[in-house]
Amino acid sequence: MHNFRLVTTIRVRYAETDQMGVANNANYLTWFEVCRTELCRNCGMPPAVWEKEGFFLPVAECGCRYRHPAVYDDLVQLWCMPEKIMPCSVTFRYRAVRESDGCLLAEGWTKHAVTDARGKLVRKDNAFYRWMLDEEKKFQSEE
Amino acid sequence: MHNFRLVTTIRVRYAETDQMGVANNANYLTWFEVCRTELCRNCGMPPAVWEKEGFFLPVAECGCRYRHPAVYDDLVQLWCMPEKIMPCSVTFRYRAVRESDGCLLAEGWTKHAVTDARGKLVRKDNAFYRWMLDEEKKFQSEE
Amino acid sequence: MHNFRLVTTIRVRYAETDQMGVANNANYLTWFEVCRTELCRNCGMPPAVWEKEGFFLPVAECGCRYRHPAVYDDLVQLWCMPEKIMPCSVTFRYRAVRESDGCLLAEGWTKHAVTDARGKLVRKDNAFYRWMLDEEKKFQSEE
Amino acid sequence: MHNFRLVTTIRVRYAETDQMGVANNANYLTWFEVCRTELCRNCGMPPAVWEKEGFFLPVAECGCRYRHPAVYDDLVQLWCMPEKIMPCSVTFRYRAVRESDGCLLAEGWTKHAVTDARGKLVRKDNAFYRWMLDEEKKFQSEE
Repeated sequence: MHNFRLVTTIRVRYAETDQMGVANNANYLTWFEVCRTELCRNCGMPPAVWEKEGFFLPVAECGCRYRHPAVYDDLVQLWCMPEKIMPCSVTFRYRAVRESDGCLLAEGWTKHAVTDARGKLVRKDNAFYRWMLDEEKKFQSEE
Repeated sequence: MHNFRLVTTIRVRYAETDQMGVANNANYLTWFEVCRTELCRNCGMPPAVWEKEGFFLPVAECGCRYRHPAVYDDLVQLWCMPEKIMPCSVTFRYRAVRESDGCLLAEGWTKHAVTDARGKLVRKDNAFYRWMLDEEKKFQSEE
Repeated sequence: MHNFRLVTTIRVRYAETDQMGVANNANYLTWFEVCRTELCRNCGMPPAVWEKEGFFLPVAECGCRYRHPAVYDDLVQLWCMPEKIMPCSVTFRYRAVRESDGCLLAEGWTKHAVTDARGKLVRKDNAFYRWMLDEEKKFQSEE
Repeated sequence: MHNFRLVTTIRVRYAETDQMGVANNANYLTWFEVCRTELCRNCGMPPAVWEKEGFFLPVAECGCRYRHPAVYDDLVQLWCMPEKIMPCSVTFRYRAVRESDGCLLAEGWTKHAVTDARGKLVRKDNAFYRWMLDEEKKFQSEE
């Protein structure tokens, strides 16, 4: 998984299953959010801190392809790759992988606007943008 | 159901079921919240309006007794009865009833603090308190 | 909205908001599921009945574009258009529209596999497929 | 916290907050479920295994007292104490504690029926009951 990094691992909750006996499709978007939170934390700045600094990342678009179902109590690795880092938007790609056998469960992406606390788009050369670029460069050079 | 009034009816969503094939227990608290919203709306003042006026009702305590499971696509009536209306707190009792056969699915209650936007308890003779008392009197006299 | 039909209207629940003060993005997938349920019910066969007949519709892919946020207590119309009706898959397109002013909140789609109770793809000329085609023809001729 | 043991720690998700800026009350029931799962796993038998053996633990009653709000990104310790272990029912008590400062966020309990896959109460001397008793004795003697 070139350029994807393993960010965190979640365990499927009972409440996340539905009567088909598998994790309901909507939960993957919540897991992707957990993945973004942990990616930023791993880089030293969790989203909670960015929100205090006045930067918000509402989801503007998303997509997901479900390949294999996750079931209750599965450990699910969440892999992430930021891309298209722009002053006023950023896209994250995700892969959800079952830890026990490496099975790819789902691939998804979310595109985010970068806004201030009032929901207004933030323009060029902002602190969040520069931080994302810096972190991405560090990651690329480590590989 | 003396003093309980039928407030609204919800339909069990697929995402609300779990792998036991029934509505997951945590959803009842969300349904009770829907019931409070609609009870206030039926009295002319939905909680969204009260929040703009600066009154918030965080849940301080709750309880629920699950008697029969609700399944996907069931229509569930939500009955409510306010009680212990105080300047800085109020309790609501709920009954969830399957519409098709009148089966009592669950009985619950929530106790709420009445606070301002900063979470500080609101004291005596506030507008929300007087409104709740007035609405309750109207309801009692209608019966 | 050519070929889209208004299927049902939901109201944004308190539990569906997040601390940005708007409906969390993951809920739209749940609302789309509610929309599918009601679309099928409006055609006389709710998914609960199809599941008893042995037909399941797991989500294989999804996408959503969020245009404007929905807030607590908003009435949200859910519009739907089935497309690409195939023996073993079907796609639904959705629009979420704020009832009060007609504002388009989100556009999305879900692609579903058609499977039996064990998750195996169902092949040609099955009952669900013929029903979907028939209902779609009826709808087209009504317009 | 006499007889309570620290079972697991969760982090508050963005999707779990509501517009009051705190974790929505219904999530605590889901966290308590996570806590039960991990308690059983720590004892060598996660609920997923018990379900394969034919033992289910539907929630029959619950209660929760919310003392302080949890906010996004808080680490929340989940403490648990089983009590009233009976052949056909068991009760768990919980405490949710903010890890950073030890603040008690909520206290709750759930009472469960012990049933077979069809939802029928399981009677005396069953494997799950004996296991719970054994594990509880081990825990008491370790203290």
